Amino acid sequence: MSTQSLNPGLVVQRLARTRALMSQNGIQALLVPSADPHLSEYLPAYWQGRQWLSGFYGSVGTLIVTPTFAGLWADSRYWEQATKELAGSSIELVKLVPGQPGPLEWLAEQAPQGATVSVDGAVLALASARTLEGKLKERGAVLRTDIDLLGQVWEDRPALPVQAVYEHLPPQATVSRVVKLAQLRESLVQRKADAHFIATLDDIAWLFNLRGSDVSFNPVFVSFALINAEQATLFVDLNKVSPALQETLKHDGVELREYIEINDALAALPASTRLLVDPARVTCGLLSHLQPDVKLVEGVNPTTLAKSQKSLDDAFHIRQAMEQDGAALCEFFAWLETALGRERITELTIDEQLTAARARRPGFVSLSFNTIAAFNANGAMPHYHATEQEHAVVEGDGLLLIDSGGQYLGGTTDITRMVPIGTLSYEQKRDCTRVLKGVIALSRAQFPKGILSPLLDSIARAPIWAEAVDYGHGTGHGVGYFLNVHEGPQVIAYQAAPAPHTAMQAGMITSIEPGTYRPGRWGVRIENLVLNREAGASEFGSFLKFETLTLCPIDTRCLEPSLLTLEELEWFDAYHAQVRERLSPLLDGAALEWLLARTVPLSRVA
Amino acid sequence: MSTQSLNPGLVVQRLARTRALMSQNGIQALLVPSADPHLSEYLPAYWQGRQWLSGFYGSVGTLIVTPTFAGLWADSRYWEQATKELAGSSIELVKLVPGQPGPLEWLAEQAPQGATVSVDGAVLALASARTLEGKLKERGAVLRTDIDLLGQVWEDRPALPVQAVYEHLPPQATVSRVVKLAQLRESLVQRKADAHFIATLDDIAWLFNLRGSDVSFNPVFVSFALINAEQATLFVDLNKVSPALQETLKHDGVELREYIEINDALAALPASTRLLVDPARVTCGLLSHLQPDVKLVEGVNPTTLAKSQKSLDDAFHIRQAMEQDGAALCEFFAWLETALGRERITELTIDEQLTAARARRPGFVSLSFNTIAAFNANGAMPHYHATEQEHAVVEGDGLLLIDSGGQYLGGTTDITRMVPIGTLSYEQKRDCTRVLKGVIALSRAQFPKGILSPLLDSIARAPIWAEAVDYGHGTGHGVGYFLNVHEGPQVIAYQAAPAPHTAMQAGMITSIEPGTYRPGRWGVRIENLVLNREAGASEFGSFLKFETLTLCPIDTRCLEPSLLTLEELEWFDAYHAQVRERLSPLLDGAALEWLLARTVPLSRVA
Repeated sequence: MSTQSLNPGLVVQRLARTRALMSQNGIQALLVPSADPHLSEYLPAYWQGRQWLSGFYGSVGTLIVTPTFAGLWADSRYWEQATKELAGSSIELVKLVPGQPGPLEWLAEQAPQGATVSVDGAVLALASARTLEGKLKERGAVLRTDIDLLGQVWEDRPALPVQAVYEHLPPQATVSRVVKLAQLRESLVQRKADAHFIATLDDIAWLFNLRGSDVSFNPVFVSFALINAEQATLFVDLNKVSPALQETLKHDGVELREYIEINDALAALPASTRLLVDPARVTCGLLSHLQPDVKLVEGVNPTTLAKSQKSLDDAFHIRQAMEQDGAALCEFFAWLETALGRERITELTIDEQLTAARARRPGFVSLSFNTIAAFNANGAMPHYHATEQEHAVVEGDGLLLIDSGGQYLGGTTDITRMVPIGTLSYEQKRDCTRVLKGVIALSRAQFPKGILSPLLDSIARAPIWAEAVDYGHGTGHGVGYFLNVHEGPQVIAYQAAPAPHTAMQAGMITSIEPGTYRPGRWGVRIENLVLNREAGASEFGSFLKFETLTLCPIDTRCLEPSLLTLEELEWFDAYHAQVRERLSPLLDGAALEWLLARTVPLSRVA
Repeated sequence: MSTQSLNPGLVVQRLARTRALMSQNGIQALLVPSADPHLSEYLPAYWQGRQWLSGFYGSVGTLIVTPTFAGLWADSRYWEQATKELAGSSIELVKLVPGQPGPLEWLAEQAPQGATVSVDGAVLALASARTLEGKLKERGAVLRTDIDLLGQVWEDRPALPVQAVYEHLPPQATVSRVVKLAQLRESLVQRKADAHFIATLDDIAWLFNLRGSDVSFNPVFVSFALINAEQATLFVDLNKVSPALQETLKHDGVELREYIEINDALAALPASTRLLVDPARVTCGLLSHLQPDVKLVEGVNPTTLAKSQKSLDDAFHIRQAMEQDGAALCEFFAWLETALGRERITELTIDEQLTAARARRPGFVSLSFNTIAAFNANGAMPHYHATEQEHAVVEGDGLLLIDSGGQYLGGTTDITRMVPIGTLSYEQKRDCTRVLKGVIALSRAQFPKGILSPLLDSIARAPIWAEAVDYGHGTGHGVGYFLNVHEGPQVIAYQAAPAPHTAMQAGMITSIEPGTYRPGRWGVRIENLVLNREAGASEFGSFLKFETLTLCPIDTRCLEPSLLTLEELEWFDAYHAQVRERLSPLLDGAALEWLLARTVPLSRVA
């Protein structure tokens, strides 16, 4: 599956060295999360310790090592991948199921009385540290976060990234950093905080209108920020910031300090400071540098809430980015249809061609995540990625799932479409149609402003559940504005806790991506991004509705139109009419022909 | 509105006496909940202290009295009623809104440093006491639960109820008390508990197959129960239990003790006892009698979970009860249609006639709650109840809302139907049709077994939200089996926390009752009860679906059929076909004619 897959013998050796070190330090269990000091989704190689130690290359997973056991907890997206990658490593895959005990619960149950459990505090969220500490305490065990065991074993650890930091400029940057800093300072006053510490990279990139290339796909750069009423300090490797940009930032009231000085800066905060931090977005290791009397004011980062609510100006640019992205997809699909049967096409070819089509579009910066081009059985792994070593040839009959996205200066895209290859079975068409019903049900929904987003999930699932089908992942994640393709605070997933900060507000962008996965056979997912728009107020309150942002035909040859209701057909044809209208001006030749053919009203096709 | 409404001067006097006593005891705030030692919904007069002190007769509300302020917190169901009843009393109505701070939060914010807040521990749930104590502690205030201030002011306090206890017998009682006790003891072993204390009356009535008439509508009796591996003790006024029943219970291993002996019995539990209690279903006052070393094992009462999952045999009797209840409604509606315009009909007449029709049916025991017959503007108050003093005459044009239910030996019913009076406006029909869409959407739903019930709410609301309409109450509550018309643990309400114990299981009965309320104009609610039935298992897990239990036509003259989708029309006509088939055999004459006329397929009417 993965080019990077390790020699299992190497994993066994590394585990042995780790266990020796655990024994020397009197540690009975080591937990290695997929995390860095910024609690990022995509980690610089420097912090990919869990991957290095386990040989599991999935982006999310938790490793626990004890003297006699090693287990990797992964959710259903990764089960197939983990099973392959962990084979022979002596590490057991522990399947993470919503509602079932996770690795923290396992530790809390298994830790012997008096045991010491170690997690590197530098990469452990404060909230997680508290939860784990509480659970261990009940068992009479203790948590130690002041030792980086893995760092001591990892002799060939990669260096920190050194990519240049650059500005996100107008017109796509619609609010200046000066205004954003002023708004943030208002939030500090409201929360009676003197200062605010930010460790999350997308919050920092958004606040300062800066971008970087330190990790794959997310245009962020490794940094910290400390803001009070007078100062805004950005901690970043100064070699990454050009003198001109340093001057610009200084002019806007942003002080620059070296990345590694954050510990000293936190230690230097006066004991009387009321410091606003988000316990889920800072690590306990960083906060351990604070003087003990510093009072933590806890809450979601104000920037997290602010950046989730895109402005009307942002929406203008996002719609343009969506048109360019949709046009790139049409060009790609037109090529694919011609090439199929004429040349050898693999999942890798698809990634190459699609990426090239996007790269030709104005405003394109990079992909927003690793393209998933997954044919038949590979599509049953929601986070599959084809590699040089293992990939399918697209031939014969079946379903090709393509989940891809781009970073544009004016927005971030994320789209999944199904492609029919050869002849599809009725069951495959039924799966696609049922998933489409889920997309339509939620896309058409209107709902009270402020509704907790997890509560909307059942609207998408109802038509899927109706046929005793379900999927293990969430239905929707928040999406950034030329930023992370996964951002909070909203999430449309019944597995998520409906916490107050998950409330739906105008301007939020969320994916709608139900699916159906039949292991060993095929997978179906259809995904659009939607924007929360005001739907007006009535005597019953204010309501929001979705504007579908994503513009690309949904291939009707994957569908069984007789299974759609009249209302679903209407939505579908209206969507295709809009796709046709908005993408036509950007296309010509075979791509335009493809668009016109694929957006014929379904009521006429059927 | 209410026959019982108090002279506001009397309330002012009572508050003054209460404040004097607060001052003598050094108490800065008194909280009076709507509660008794059994945390019941319907309170015997003996525990209706909040009502006595405030003059607000709604069934749920919390009074807070300080030296300078008195406020009554009530949810949207009661705002209109409370505004009327509190007028002139000096008590302020504080509107309770989901997601907004409630009375506990208010106390926690307002309590001055060092203040003493008093709540009678005898009627305060352990969980609430802990929450309040924690919040007050943050403010440097303390909670005192060992003093019954209200009891000292209340000189004409009513006596405890003395109605006879009787057996719920086979065939309707489908599982013997001996078997239920054995199952409960298995749960104790699983939870590693030595004993279990039950204070909630429906749990006790269910466990022992006993019923009573101590409160309105809920066929329960005032009692406590203490169960361990060897003994099962029921604490009840022995005058209420006939010698023959005492003998039967003794034979089944149930020991009887006087109600008032519970305090001594709790005090006598050995210090080593591991006592299973449900913190939401026992009061801190009762537990204060335990020896300090008794270890509490906390969790939902096993009986609460067990009784919510009705057996196949229960379902058999429930279907029969639903048929009798539906037949009674048909007789009533046939009478109403003939009588309208010929005689003077008020909301009270409707209650009388409907109750009489139910009372003629075999197995009928009592109403399951106060009938709500609410014409036009009165219907906008979801918990309206007509009284001798204030009620509407049903004449002219408008919507009549009738929400009613019965207790039968074989089940509990709860149904709401809309009746068209004269000519309805398009807006009224649209409101009724939209609410019906909500009923249909959820009634047709299938969902994974174990889904947390609050997550299903948006399925019912989606078609209502679609037109910028919403309602303040939950969509569905659990319903007992010849027991409380409101029972947990499941609840279909997005306002409720999706806690693990709210998981949907086979055999649960829940209401589906969306609504639309237009204050001063009219209210719409349509309500059916549904049974969770197995829908089979697939590779994606086990699924449940709803069987609609309630059998009664939904008047098509309130509807605008053009607003229904084809799928909704199909559901509706299939439902009416079943209603016609199952109720016809129980009816003749005008009632049968009415049933046949009102169940003509809507597709033919339209």
